[in-house]
Amino acid sequence: MPDCIFCKIVKGKIPANKVYEDDKVLAFLDIKPVNPGHVLVVSKDHDLDLISTPDELLCSIITVAKRIGKKILELGLGEAITFTFNNGRVAGQVVDHVHLHIMPRISGDGYELWHGREYLSGEAEKITNLLKLE
Amino acid sequence: MPDCIFCKIVKGKIPANKVYEDDKVLAFLDIKPVNPGHVLVVSKDHDLDLISTPDELLCSIITVAKRIGKKILELGLGEAITFTFNNGRVAGQVVDHVHLHIMPRISGDGYELWHGREYLSGEAEKITNLLKLE
Repeated sequence: MPDCIFCKIVKGKIPANKVYEDDKVLAFLDIKPVNPGHVLVVSKDHDLDLISTPDELLCSIITVAKRIGKKILELGLGEAITFTFNNGRVAGQVVDHVHLHIMPRISGDGYELWHGREYLSGEAEKITNLLKLE
Repeated sequence: MPDCIFCKIVKGKIPANKVYEDDKVLAFLDIKPVNPGHVLVVSKDHDLDLISTPDELLCSIITVAKRIGKKILELGLGEAITFTFNNGRVAGQVVDHVHLHIMPRISGDGYELWHGREYLSGEAEKITNLLKLE
């Protein structure tokens, strides 16, 4: 995709701090890190988001992310790690090219998972029936 | 693991609203949803977190999550989706059994990715060199 910033990084047209590269994926530092050592893993092909990415490529992304996450912990860049794919604008996806955030976490850094309301009577069962995969 | 709540769900000792099950993974509704339709995908084996989970099993988790995420969007349970593994207590992991959150996202639901400070001069390059995988 000519106007995609991650495609430009993959092709070397825009510089990036690369931490891993193979024939399928590229990993580099996020320029606006949640904490230092925040890495993005992207597919080399242009896939829009997690849901439109082929299974095999998702496997490559997650297994590379695991290796990088392990190294982040070994280096002490984080006490823990949040691994996140944002799928769609409302989820906070800014670049329309699939990418996994590997975010080193430090006590008190302020990133919290919030909880919404609890299910009403019968609601969870109804949603479960709708969601069930064949 | 005898005292693990997700192992108990896998074994049927605690009920759950199951949306998918095969020989490797189980997916069920989170009882404290970020938004209704919030699903957890867990391994059937007891693995502590993403980093200690075998690659093949991570692939199973992420590919099942993709199918469930697609269905969440088709059903209109969310406008977008956040897929997250919290690895370690400081990252918000509460149950010590690997699980992927599939969180339907709705405009204005209040879950934001925050950004920390930008890199100092030379810092990103130093961290990149430390993090580089062989």
